[in-house]
Amino acid sequence: MNAKTEAIHLLDPGLLSKRFASVRSHSQARAESLSEEDCCAQSMEDASPVKWHLAHTTWFFETFILERFEHAFHAFDPAFRVLFNSYYNGVGDKYARPFRGLLTRPSLREIQAYRHDVDRRMQQLLAPDYLFRLPSEQREALMTLLELGLQHEQQHQELMMTDVLHLFSCNPLQPAYTRMPPQRSVDLELHWQAFDAGVVTIGSEGGFSFDNELPRHRQFVEAYQLASRLVTNGEYLAFMEDGGYRRPELWMSEGWSWVQAQALQHPLYWQDVHASTGKAFGHEADGWHVFGLHGLQKLDPNAAVSQISWFEADAYARWANARLPTEAEWEHAAYQTMQSDESVLTQLFGVCWQWTSSSYAPYPGFTAAAGALGEYNGKFMSNQYVLRGSSCVTPDGHSRRSYRNFFPSTARWQFAGIRLARSGHWSV
Amino acid sequence: MNAKTEAIHLLDPGLLSKRFASVRSHSQARAESLSEEDCCAQSMEDASPVKWHLAHTTWFFETFILERFEHAFHAFDPAFRVLFNSYYNGVGDKYARPFRGLLTRPSLREIQAYRHDVDRRMQQLLAPDYLFRLPSEQREALMTLLELGLQHEQQHQELMMTDVLHLFSCNPLQPAYTRMPPQRSVDLELHWQAFDAGVVTIGSEGGFSFDNELPRHRQFVEAYQLASRLVTNGEYLAFMEDGGYRRPELWMSEGWSWVQAQALQHPLYWQDVHASTGKAFGHEADGWHVFGLHGLQKLDPNAAVSQISWFEADAYARWANARLPTEAEWEHAAYQTMQSDESVLTQLFGVCWQWTSSSYAPYPGFTAAAGALGEYNGKFMSNQYVLRGSSCVTPDGHSRRSYRNFFPSTARWQFAGIRLARSGHWSV
Amino acid sequence: MNAKTEAIHLLDPGLLSKRFASVRSHSQARAESLSEEDCCAQSMEDASPVKWHLAHTTWFFETFILERFEHAFHAFDPAFRVLFNSYYNGVGDKYARPFRGLLTRPSLREIQAYRHDVDRRMQQLLAPDYLFRLPSEQREALMTLLELGLQHEQQHQELMMTDVLHLFSCNPLQPAYTRMPPQRSVDLELHWQAFDAGVVTIGSEGGFSFDNELPRHRQFVEAYQLASRLVTNGEYLAFMEDGGYRRPELWMSEGWSWVQAQALQHPLYWQDVHASTGKAFGHEADGWHVFGLHGLQKLDPNAAVSQISWFEADAYARWANARLPTEAEWEHAAYQTMQSDESVLTQLFGVCWQWTSSSYAPYPGFTAAAGALGEYNGKFMSNQYVLRGSSCVTPDGHSRRSYRNFFPSTARWQFAGIRLARSGHWSV
Amino acid sequence: MNAKTEAIHLLDPGLLSKRFASVRSHSQARAESLSEEDCCAQSMEDASPVKWHLAHTTWFFETFILERFEHAFHAFDPAFRVLFNSYYNGVGDKYARPFRGLLTRPSLREIQAYRHDVDRRMQQLLAPDYLFRLPSEQREALMTLLELGLQHEQQHQELMMTDVLHLFSCNPLQPAYTRMPPQRSVDLELHWQAFDAGVVTIGSEGGFSFDNELPRHRQFVEAYQLASRLVTNGEYLAFMEDGGYRRPELWMSEGWSWVQAQALQHPLYWQDVHASTGKAFGHEADGWHVFGLHGLQKLDPNAAVSQISWFEADAYARWANARLPTEAEWEHAAYQTMQSDESVLTQLFGVCWQWTSSSYAPYPGFTAAAGALGEYNGKFMSNQYVLRGSSCVTPDGHSRRSYRNFFPSTARWQFAGIRLARSGHWSV
Repeated sequence: MNAKTEAIHLLDPGLLSKRFASVRSHSQARAESLSEEDCCAQSMEDASPVKWHLAHTTWFFETFILERFEHAFHAFDPAFRVLFNSYYNGVGDKYARPFRGLLTRPSLREIQAYRHDVDRRMQQLLAPDYLFRLPSEQREALMTLLELGLQHEQQHQELMMTDVLHLFSCNPLQPAYTRMPPQRSVDLELHWQAFDAGVVTIGSEGGFSFDNELPRHRQFVEAYQLASRLVTNGEYLAFMEDGGYRRPELWMSEGWSWVQAQALQHPLYWQDVHASTGKAFGHEADGWHVFGLHGLQKLDPNAAVSQISWFEADAYARWANARLPTEAEWEHAAYQTMQSDESVLTQLFGVCWQWTSSSYAPYPGFTAAAGALGEYNGKFMSNQYVLRGSSCVTPDGHSRRSYRNFFPSTARWQFAGIRLARSGHWSV
Repeated sequence: MNAKTEAIHLLDPGLLSKRFASVRSHSQARAESLSEEDCCAQSMEDASPVKWHLAHTTWFFETFILERFEHAFHAFDPAFRVLFNSYYNGVGDKYARPFRGLLTRPSLREIQAYRHDVDRRMQQLLAPDYLFRLPSEQREALMTLLELGLQHEQQHQELMMTDVLHLFSCNPLQPAYTRMPPQRSVDLELHWQAFDAGVVTIGSEGGFSFDNELPRHRQFVEAYQLASRLVTNGEYLAFMEDGGYRRPELWMSEGWSWVQAQALQHPLYWQDVHASTGKAFGHEADGWHVFGLHGLQKLDPNAAVSQISWFEADAYARWANARLPTEAEWEHAAYQTMQSDESVLTQLFGVCWQWTSSSYAPYPGFTAAAGALGEYNGKFMSNQYVLRGSSCVTPDGHSRRSYRNFFPSTARWQFAGIRLARSGHWSV
Repeated sequence: MNAKTEAIHLLDPGLLSKRFASVRSHSQARAESLSEEDCCAQSMEDASPVKWHLAHTTWFFETFILERFEHAFHAFDPAFRVLFNSYYNGVGDKYARPFRGLLTRPSLREIQAYRHDVDRRMQQLLAPDYLFRLPSEQREALMTLLELGLQHEQQHQELMMTDVLHLFSCNPLQPAYTRMPPQRSVDLELHWQAFDAGVVTIGSEGGFSFDNELPRHRQFVEAYQLASRLVTNGEYLAFMEDGGYRRPELWMSEGWSWVQAQALQHPLYWQDVHASTGKAFGHEADGWHVFGLHGLQKLDPNAAVSQISWFEADAYARWANARLPTEAEWEHAAYQTMQSDESVLTQLFGVCWQWTSSSYAPYPGFTAAAGALGEYNGKFMSNQYVLRGSSCVTPDGHSRRSYRNFFPSTARWQFAGIRLARSGHWSV
Repeated sequence: MNAKTEAIHLLDPGLLSKRFASVRSHSQARAESLSEEDCCAQSMEDASPVKWHLAHTTWFFETFILERFEHAFHAFDPAFRVLFNSYYNGVGDKYARPFRGLLTRPSLREIQAYRHDVDRRMQQLLAPDYLFRLPSEQREALMTLLELGLQHEQQHQELMMTDVLHLFSCNPLQPAYTRMPPQRSVDLELHWQAFDAGVVTIGSEGGFSFDNELPRHRQFVEAYQLASRLVTNGEYLAFMEDGGYRRPELWMSEGWSWVQAQALQHPLYWQDVHASTGKAFGHEADGWHVFGLHGLQKLDPNAAVSQISWFEADAYARWANARLPTEAEWEHAAYQTMQSDESVLTQLFGVCWQWTSSSYAPYPGFTAAAGALGEYNGKFMSNQYVLRGSSCVTPDGHSRRSYRNFFPSTARWQFAGIRLARSGHWSV
């Protein structure tokens, strides 16, 4: 963990305390419309219960900050130290991931008590009279860990949404997470934006970053073009109607085997609702629908296609005579877009994460932190692909150009979509 | 379903209504100490959530009685007709069993509303002015189905306990279902009771029975002996300490492969607690414990060994130079015991179900009922073994000599134990 | 092993030696038309390579007879003691069953040298001057083991055929084991033969038997009827055309899950050949064919349906308003048939093994032999069903009324078919 | 397929014909010491039988050259067109890969007849009077395909060795492929060779290449160092003895799960031979041995460690405070080594393939060929890692700096080892 914490250093402690309270309460807010039962269930091995997310993020502060900085530290509950350890082998035993949904005890209420207790004790550490009595090295360490803990909690805020959506998708009642009506999408024209060949510099530009965004370094990119917007549901439907899921030549060999083994025919949350099947559950019976936070909605052709795996994104790109961008291409283009007066690339942030063709790997010169926090990122750098940007469920203030999200090529339940790329200076 | 309903026929309707209310409220009573979260989770494919048991038993009355006998029937919720169908292919679609734990909606409260609504409507049917206006054939049919529904609910009352116990056993906190202290066991001496060879008659003796207990028929049994009591934890421990789980010659070939593949070394709920591992979860650190409805308790050597699979029961019996009884031997002995003044066989009912060596198969002349209710029993008559007696979680009034319980040879989470048998007239 | 060897005792040693040579050379004869490659491959875990059968049967004589009775015994090759041990845990290590097809070394020729060496040494033991110098107890033991070894080899002779047929069925070239033309079947009328209720005696009647046929004992059978002949391909086709593989009400619950998971639609070796798919492999293109020892042949409607699993046999019987016989019913009927002047039951032996409804279980009073030979039968007595009779590939002299063959309910590659039964004295 | 064929163009046809004959006969030579049984078996899904390799490489010439260029083409056997198609979806049906070991027919002799027939017909096409009568575009196409077919056959020559070695490793007899004694290794000192940061150009330099080596393009590499030689068995043993397979912090998270699930403790072909277990199979009983083409040999501490997966290579590198090189680093260093007078990097070719940290991905501007040959490489560009160099079983003339071999991160049976890298200009 190489968090840069300069920005925070300049803040007065009152702001630290407010920021802590704000991030923490946002997790609670996201769980507000959910029942105790909703918060307890786990719909697949890759997902976790909302209650577990609420507890694990709390465990992070307890384990990495309170235990180190609190006078006369005592665990809120020794059992929680094992139950809510996610994957840090360096921190001791952990409860097996696939069974997180079986933890009906501790109850959601007990987890909330755990959150309140840790919040209270964290605020004591962040109080000026405590903080400024610490030796400066200690204080810096605390603030670095604090920022990491908050960023970590924000990551889990996104996962709470992806995981509860998956849970609801397994329920024939298809409950809506929110009663707010979905936003209407507009029809954006697609432009191709060209970028010259050359050496570009990527990686963290300063401020907080995760260790995987470091070190900042140079890469050579050949000339390329990026699509000005994301691929839409309507375009993806055209791919499907052109036999997209039935044509092996469009797929990676491994992806094709997977598509056949799973008999995939459409994105995870798409449903072709028919009169006969929809009736028992009260759905309208007229063609393609998409399940989302608003429940089951008629497919919006202008909305960006989402909840797409890398294999699907890659196949779509091949069908469209294009390809996925590399992460250097994406980051350089995002930088250029910010610099230019005319912002030619849209939907970089806040709609869907964008799959890249880049395998998740350490940057040249990468070194993981010592100890358990070194397990944060580096050990996942195999057989996963990088996604860039951010999504509609990424919390405010958690997006940046150098951010490297990553998932395996078969992950279908994230808010992940497609921005196309092309090599060379082709004319449109 | 060949339920004999004579006993009920003679009752006045007030008793019918009381019996219905009594059985139904007993299900609720068993769920009382559980949280909404406890009632929602499913710990393995073979188990179901408590909430699902509460709903499915209600679905049974709605589907097989209300839909047929109620004027102007309407489903409480059309979706429930699919969600809470267990395995009746003849009744339409059903929700996939392994995912029952994902049904966080409908909530436990909604299920309770469902129960109340169906209870209310059932009581209307059972009211004298309704019941006695029905043609007698209809009335008989209703009463037969009523009794079947109640017996069905009692079966699920037992499963609620076995399933919630399994769920709790997966939780490192090992919560206790009840705060009542466990009963102390006494040291019963073991006698062998001899029975002569001859033709015996087994099967339902009249009164209610499931279809699998019919027809009453003859079997020839060679001379045999039965143990007067069940195998104890202490005896089973001796088997383990004598290498029981490491000696292939004691096991069926298939059982041995299973023991090795699963690395089994003791019954499902036994734990050898050590200082090092028990600490985080607050357990005493002194040897063999058994997890049960009272939480984790020190092994009671005089208590009957329970939660044993058929493979384990069979291996234990071989180790003890004995064998499991056939179901005819068990039923004949139970009958003889009832007849005799000195009741030589104890623990026939109310402690543990007792594995037999009999594969679950139709009795000669067995015919399944027509329609969906014909799916009740017959279709499970392959690759399962019969258990006889009843257990400590079998509801009152749900035991009888001819009762045939059945589970696969690897089922480990039932209240199932061992009564030994021997062939011939050996002296003890 | 409780082999009765009286018959052999009376023979002069010359006959013993001849019988040994005759059984042993019959194994070789069955492999004659096969290439080294054919003899080496293993098509599934449940099958073994022909070469392995040839070696394992030899290992049996080497391990259980030569090692005990030969002066100055030395193993032909110490490695073979492990490689060709099948499942006798009591005899030491064994090579994992699923990988038998990887034993390209030792070569078929080396196995044949192994056979010749063991044959030569066995003949030395069977020479009169050796045999009659043995103490009589030793001589009896040797002759008992000899007979068991020969019966064991005959069992493997049948398996050689079932296993090579399965191997060939996996090859798109669908090679024929034999160039002989298949026999024409005749249209046999079906009669129902009635049998009265009563106590019958079953089990070995004397002469050689496997231990599982003992002890001879009594069973009560209620009145029943058996079909005079086996179910034909034509009848089975009618079941299929009536939706046999698509109607859950015809199947055991477990069988139905299996049929769906495997997408079964017909017996293992049936193929509905179409012009489009058959061409590349030179098949005629006209409907249902059956693959067998004669290669792919047009379905013969009068031939007995074969290579049927228990689940399929049971479903067919239910469709036909009948059931499978119990093994006591089958054996008693076979006995009655032999006694009567008019032999009303045909196809008892030599066509297909006949599935019974009886789970494979020990007879009352059964005891396994001491030591490794006790592993012969008893340890397989769980979750399998008994088949009675014998098949067209059972060697001459290996059939008897009390013979108990057994396979799991999903085994599809044996020469196993269906004889129907009914309860009661129904008129036809 | 973008094969550059200039070199061949300048040759006279006599050389073409000789080269064809030479490559083809080398395949036969590699199979010479193997029996028909050895050539037929398939030891795992990822491997193929030697016979299949011999047939498939022949199928390639028949399908892509003879069918297109031969007058009056007829297939040698229509069935072979399906049986020996590997993965070209564009060419029609194919026989399922996991069952290649079941093809005992056609026999090895028939496959050899197939080879001879296709060889004869290919030589007719390569005869000057045929070749020079073709329009030049046709001739170029033929020569391009010819070269591709030969390079393809050379790839399979390497796989024949890796696959037969795996087969032999599954046999407790552990047969040696060759009777030649293994070469003695010498103790090479390890140097770190430094390379400056800058833009490098990688990819095919002209002459034949596979499509995945194109287009030649620029990459930026930061300063780095490479080890002068490969990691040795002795060094790898030190890693093991330091707990290499027991320390999660050394492994990728996914690799650690795999190591635990498979209980890995050493490289695939390493065996710690003990007196007790080795005896039956005649092995000496003294510590670590390595199975290879020479059979089971005592571990040679100076020899390069081989048959290592990417996960193991990556964990070893982390343990050694180093990392794996990127493919650009490797290729640039190989180029520099060739240019320099003092060849500081040794073992680039002919010992073991060297794992890189680079995921197998298309070069910028990569385009796959049209039609079935476009399936050659591109569709495998997901979740695999690039290996560079060549191995001791790579055929002569099949190595080049730009060559990109690739396997999944769990592949353990290839001749694949480790060359370490470091970032920056560290002093040694």
